[in-house]
Amino acid sequence: MSATATPQRVPVPGHPEGCETPLTAQVGWQTPPGAFYTRSHFLPTPVLAAEGWQLSVEGAVERPLALTLDELRALPSHTVIATLECAGNNRTALDPPADGIQFRCGAVSTAEWRGVSLATVLHEAGLRSDAQEVLGEGTDRGHEKSLGREIPFERSLPLAKALDPDTLLAYEMNGQPLPDEHGFPARLIVPGWYGMASVKWLAKLQVLDRPYGGFFQKTKYIYEVPGQESTPVRTMRVKATFAQPADGDTVTAGAPITVRGYAWSGEGAVSRVAVSTDGGASWQDAELTAAPGQWAWCEWSLEWTPGAAGAATLLVRGTDAAGNVQPLDVPWNRLGYGNNGVQQITVNAR
Amino acid sequence: MSATATPQRVPVPGHPEGCETPLTAQVGWQTPPGAFYTRSHFLPTPVLAAEGWQLSVEGAVERPLALTLDELRALPSHTVIATLECAGNNRTALDPPADGIQFRCGAVSTAEWRGVSLATVLHEAGLRSDAQEVLGEGTDRGHEKSLGREIPFERSLPLAKALDPDTLLAYEMNGQPLPDEHGFPARLIVPGWYGMASVKWLAKLQVLDRPYGGFFQKTKYIYEVPGQESTPVRTMRVKATFAQPADGDTVTAGAPITVRGYAWSGEGAVSRVAVSTDGGASWQDAELTAAPGQWAWCEWSLEWTPGAAGAATLLVRGTDAAGNVQPLDVPWNRLGYGNNGVQQITVNAR
Repeated sequence: MSATATPQRVPVPGHPEGCETPLTAQVGWQTPPGAFYTRSHFLPTPVLAAEGWQLSVEGAVERPLALTLDELRALPSHTVIATLECAGNNRTALDPPADGIQFRCGAVSTAEWRGVSLATVLHEAGLRSDAQEVLGEGTDRGHEKSLGREIPFERSLPLAKALDPDTLLAYEMNGQPLPDEHGFPARLIVPGWYGMASVKWLAKLQVLDRPYGGFFQKTKYIYEVPGQESTPVRTMRVKATFAQPADGDTVTAGAPITVRGYAWSGEGAVSRVAVSTDGGASWQDAELTAAPGQWAWCEWSLEWTPGAAGAATLLVRGTDAAGNVQPLDVPWNRLGYGNNGVQQITVNAR
Repeated sequence: MSATATPQRVPVPGHPEGCETPLTAQVGWQTPPGAFYTRSHFLPTPVLAAEGWQLSVEGAVERPLALTLDELRALPSHTVIATLECAGNNRTALDPPADGIQFRCGAVSTAEWRGVSLATVLHEAGLRSDAQEVLGEGTDRGHEKSLGREIPFERSLPLAKALDPDTLLAYEMNGQPLPDEHGFPARLIVPGWYGMASVKWLAKLQVLDRPYGGFFQKTKYIYEVPGQESTPVRTMRVKATFAQPADGDTVTAGAPITVRGYAWSGEGAVSRVAVSTDGGASWQDAELTAAPGQWAWCEWSLEWTPGAAGAATLLVRGTDAAGNVQPLDVPWNRLGYGNNGVQQITVNAR
């Protein structure tokens, strides 16, 4: 591990539509520009021009709209620091293996997003009283084999989340226009929810008077466990993860080091992070820094002096203010979503 | 008619729970203090103390709240000028007569309301994703014969309306604390909807994960027409009404006068008011003043010179931006709600 390294985004082997960013070099709350993880549903990545782009707002509204980028930017802006995590992060830890992109633990990143509250635009359009959900349609589309036809990437939000002032139509990321791979010129940012909700390259908002039942909501992004009724993948489950040391690092027996990492939850502030340096036999509370915002990860750290030479297994486990605790046993589901089992690394002391 | 008169609130004979305010002396947009029409569902009027009052927020929320009046007043405030009309206004014009308080045309008034956006409090409590409606319960309660038990006055709002920034938890009316008869210490103000939605003496907000089906929503305040499916009473239908001259006034033949009144709609700005001074044979467009806000009535006026001596029948008819027009034939419904038939007065020229 090196103090001057910066986090790098690396492709997932065999899955060009996913790149993850190991946290081993992550310092501070912000994922450095160019390092934010990516996960697309259709390739190639849309490369859109600002000129000519329009966001249409239609469906159960009083006044359908078509907003240019300039018109969107002219509305009152709102900024949110949000951690996004892919619902498939830590999928590799599932046993038996689950279908999907085999992310290790790096499909999570944090940025400052600026845009317009989705609520502002929806109130501009005037929600009809029968409005129930808001469907966001991206420009990205492709052939879906199981359906035998082309579909866009699209996802709906219940009104309660769509009208949260922190749910954004974002056009800036860390003070710059969105990079192409993050949805230029505008995307949804749905803080607290797994990343798939934050539809990129947004083309259309359709207000629905009934629940949406499309592919990326009823066939994908569901917790599917044999013998149980499937439930939708939505809020990020509480998770604490290691930054340093990294799995497999060599440390010096008897020399104190700082064990540190990040923790987040879509269901409430992280209230506690406990670390075990003896494979789970005992646990110590880590120190927590204040998160830079309600929807962002916080940092945790613990001083630790490795004892005798040899391998040591470290575990970390987060708890959030809603009382959710990371499970010791990984909660398996067929599509491998929301795996927030306790994280584990092994280091070698010598 | 006198230039120095001010509008007075007068009881509806036989109905102590309703007082209306004829518009014949109304000038400007604001109904004078003490003259705003009243309609209660249970008597006596609750008289509550600020101290000890709490508004509980519960149900499908992350963080149930109990707000004191001071806590409510400490939240960011928002002000809305809103016209409220009783859903039973103009019930007397129905033929055959409909059950309910026999309001003539004075159950409509306008005030400036200050409070906190209901959305602010709901986001503070954190809406759960399954939130569908927000039920407001008043302190007013009483025995409902048809149910054989005591019930509170309570009404729900769909999320789309509950989260509109202009839907208020109001604690001030025209710059003063709410009068007792208007819901002290806090009430809902639901702009654009008939008055029953603006629950007074608010005690509890309950976020529901299913549609509400209580008495004041499914048995009362529905448009009930034999042979048709009943529909809920919600937005105020477009209506233009006379202020001066008043029905039965004497005017001077050959001497020009100003015919004037008020017009409003819960479904869009009033775009046109047409007046007939010959019993409907011909129509002239009235002049409109700008309304003091999106949710308030506007004033209309027309210069008119009464011709030959004798009775003259004047009609007025409003149109709103959504294209709704006041019907010439009164749309009858069993409970006599939403009567926005064209208004008519007769004056005697001599």
